[in-house]
Amino acid sequence: MKIIIVGATGAIGKKVTANLESEHEVIKVGSKSGDIQVDIRNPESIEAMFKAVGSFDALISTVGSGYFGPLKDMTPENFSVGLNDKLLGQVSLVLIGQHYINPKGSFTLTSGILSEEPVFALSNLSTVNGALNSFTIAAAAELENGVRINVVSPGVVEDSPQYFPAFQGHVPVTMDKVVNAYRKSVLGILTGQVIKVY
Amino acid sequence: MKIIIVGATGAIGKKVTANLESEHEVIKVGSKSGDIQVDIRNPESIEAMFKAVGSFDALISTVGSGYFGPLKDMTPENFSVGLNDKLLGQVSLVLIGQHYINPKGSFTLTSGILSEEPVFALSNLSTVNGALNSFTIAAAAELENGVRINVVSPGVVEDSPQYFPAFQGHVPVTMDKVVNAYRKSVLGILTGQVIKVY
Repeated sequence: MKIIIVGATGAIGKKVTANLESEHEVIKVGSKSGDIQVDIRNPESIEAMFKAVGSFDALISTVGSGYFGPLKDMTPENFSVGLNDKLLGQVSLVLIGQHYINPKGSFTLTSGILSEEPVFALSNLSTVNGALNSFTIAAAAELENGVRINVVSPGVVEDSPQYFPAFQGHVPVTMDKVVNAYRKSVLGILTGQVIKVY
Repeated sequence: MKIIIVGATGAIGKKVTANLESEHEVIKVGSKSGDIQVDIRNPESIEAMFKAVGSFDALISTVGSGYFGPLKDMTPENFSVGLNDKLLGQVSLVLIGQHYINPKGSFTLTSGILSEEPVFALSNLSTVNGALNSFTIAAAAELENGVRINVVSPGVVEDSPQYFPAFQGHVPVTMDKVVNAYRKSVLGILTGQVIKVY
């Protein structure tokens, strides 16, 4: 299977890549590293990535950032950061990628626990994650040629200790569980599912 | 109570206004009609609206549009329509309005059933609605001075028969139920709730 991993050098992407590349052809994509570079905020950059890769069987996206800051100081402009990056960036990978993916291929996006369990100063990412979950449910019902889509929604992961202080009381999820969620989406038959790992 | 209703002339806003204005001071806001006009896509326009109204006790928003079209033809630019209108527009009413609202005031936004029950060609609004639900959960946890926030998520409403063909198999919800959901949010004690009316 030919699998594109956007975010292959991030905390999650690294482990997913290591797990899949022994059995599959993995194209590693990053913003600055990897086999190919992409700026997910730029549709032309995404189009160029797909043109360079050619047809493929699965795309995994583990990327996207949001705005960090307390609600009381947040402006609409601040709020746009996550909408244009983690949200529209991942959605654009699907909107553009649907024209390059092989029949019966799959998209696997990444949201996160903040959609239903907010923490201080991350309301922008809560919003983005809720959006990605609903996008996945809706897109699954319209994708053609047997193409599937799921979204993995992880809790704070054990390989990102820098986030532990913001996630008080959260039990970090093991990378093994997270990696298996992506395997379940890519190698299984699920579609339109929010695969919660927490 | 001084209540701002943004979208006071829409199908839902009209009935909510009629219900509340006998007992409360209602400021009707619309894009083109009402006591005051606002463009929710423009933060300066929102700021001007709040300056004109002065302090208030509750804001109800029943506005916002999204992009209508099949996923297979959708572009990132199309998708931005709903992100910048119904999503960021309503979020901006809260981000800016939090600086004008009275202590113990409330915000009540509007999402919709599409967040979990998609219909053809409305994946953009599914996404926006899921985003608004998660924003509400997160914002409730950070709003200060006892300010509350909820979001009403209606199914297709009986006063909008033009949408019935797109919502096959959906039983239209009565305006009475919808109006009461807004009353429950504004006049009750709930916060951080997605009030589903379907």
